[in-house]
Amino acid sequence: MPTGTFVVSTSRARQFIDITSMVQEKVAASTIADGLCHLYNPHTTAGLTINEGADPAVQSDILAALQRIVPLDRYQHLEGNSPAHVMASLVGSSVTVFIENGRLQLGTWQKIFFCEFDGPRSRKLLWRIT
Amino acid sequence: MPTGTFVVSTSRARQFIDITSMVQEKVAASTIADGLCHLYNPHTTAGLTINEGADPAVQSDILAALQRIVPLDRYQHLEGNSPAHVMASLVGSSVTVFIENGRLQLGTWQKIFFCEFDGPRSRKLLWRIT
Amino acid sequence: MPTGTFVVSTSRARQFIDITSMVQEKVAASTIADGLCHLYNPHTTAGLTINEGADPAVQSDILAALQRIVPLDRYQHLEGNSPAHVMASLVGSSVTVFIENGRLQLGTWQKIFFCEFDGPRSRKLLWRIT
Repeated sequence: MPTGTFVVSTSRARQFIDITSMVQEKVAASTIADGLCHLYNPHTTAGLTINEGADPAVQSDILAALQRIVPLDRYQHLEGNSPAHVMASLVGSSVTVFIENGRLQLGTWQKIFFCEFDGPRSRKLLWRIT
Repeated sequence: MPTGTFVVSTSRARQFIDITSMVQEKVAASTIADGLCHLYNPHTTAGLTINEGADPAVQSDILAALQRIVPLDRYQHLEGNSPAHVMASLVGSSVTVFIENGRLQLGTWQKIFFCEFDGPRSRKLLWRIT
Repeated sequence: MPTGTFVVSTSRARQFIDITSMVQEKVAASTIADGLCHLYNPHTTAGLTINEGADPAVQSDILAALQRIVPLDRYQHLEGNSPAHVMASLVGSSVTVFIENGRLQLGTWQKIFFCEFDGPRSRKLLWRIT
């Protein structure tokens, strides 16, 4: 069961990082032509999502919408990053993508994004192919 | 590893389609009595969720709530469907259901729903049983 | 493929229950050192999420934020718990955690939480290790 980690460096407080090609490299390097690629985010103020990668405005629209959806004040956690924790639970901590003929079976417009909600930071991601 | 696709036709802009029986048919046709059924949505303005199927009002309540939760204006993406992209990331692009004795191990009230957020369209879904 | 159920008793209408040690016990008891631990919630007014466990204020902040995010009125479903159904679809019904050397590969601050949105109730959870 091939497994490992990626490092992702974020440069802004809230940011989507397209990790699709990093993930595809691991899929290609494994000997698994037909299977599942599991990605896991071990951070509590970040997430993983799959959405449109063609127009970068979609990424900034989703981030801006999350900041309008999630309340920004009246929290108890003293570290001040509770909105980021809420965004993490809304978006989710893992994604699973099918593999066919050694390629990620993504839709035409889909890319895999690491979602930074409390950066900038150096982040780690786990991957596993089954 | 049995795998394949479904076609789902949606008839409204936003709609839940109960795909449980389509999925159960694939599970029954496979030789896997005990395992996992993975479903994946390759579209960026649609999603997959598991929720109550008994009272159809729950489906329309969830859709109506999403339209109140997600801002409808002030987006940059010119295609005009950014709220649908946001809903897709909130709900998620995949679900995994356990299989026991050749049946989906859903709760009493649970059904699997394809979530259309930018229809009507003809949509494709991927399934894989492990 | 080891599989089974947990029982979780909730004592409030909305509550996070840390189930990490219950899950780790099942992982330790299985003979699988390297794999995946799948958790599934069969209820339609509850969910599963992974988030910070160190400061309990994070859990109450997330629950309070969900109550501000999800509209509380103007629903059709007569049972009166539509906000709980909406929260269930926002948070999601399953999580998958990697296993390495017989241990859940969680981040430093991560715990696995059962999310009660319509309690108090006795709830059941499904687990499966692959």
